[in-house]
Amino acid sequence: MSTKILPQPERADIRVEAVLQALGEPVRLQIVRVLAEHPEGVCCGDIELPVTASTRAHHLKTLREAGVLSTHTEGTRRVSILRRDDLDDLYPGLLTGVLTARQ
Amino acid sequence: MSTKILPQPERADIRVEAVLQALGEPVRLQIVRVLAEHPEGVCCGDIELPVTASTRAHHLKTLREAGVLSTHTEGTRRVSILRRDDLDDLYPGLLTGVLTARQ
Repeated sequence: MSTKILPQPERADIRVEAVLQALGEPVRLQIVRVLAEHPEGVCCGDIELPVTASTRAHHLKTLREAGVLSTHTEGTRRVSILRRDDLDDLYPGLLTGVLTARQ
Repeated sequence: MSTKILPQPERADIRVEAVLQALGEPVRLQIVRVLAEHPEGVCCGDIELPVTASTRAHHLKTLREAGVLSTHTEGTRRVSILRRDDLDDLYPGLLTGVLTARQ
């Protein structure tokens, strides 16, 4: 099965402002919470969200381009994985602090 | 000398999305970095920023209303203090992670 990684910044090119902006939106934060519970990755369409497919795609793209998640294809599916190692390395504690917040 | 605390959310009313949005802007992040180095507080006008006075005031208000900083008057001066205890209590590690980021 062919697989392809969608464009994303290298670790060194991730900017904290972009990460914070990406995380500071309720639906995107919900996506991140789901991904944090599934380190093996989640098929993008399987995340329950109160938005349309195009809005979902937009939010996933914003998170990907900020460096928060990585998306690859598996055949016709798109699977997203939280870039936990990269974020924990760059900003130790940030993601844990965000995920600790009550919903 | 009379002193007054400007309106700000109680700790219980601080929302993580608002904090992340407030932090995810370069000038506001610069303000937070300066405040983090001065736990005793900083006179708002003393923070060196590449923006106009009105933009500065707007950014300080955004940070205050999100619960990131507290501002009180001392006579004719306004002094801002990072709400580090509140943020560390609500989102352990978040602020440290953000401040660790290279500039």
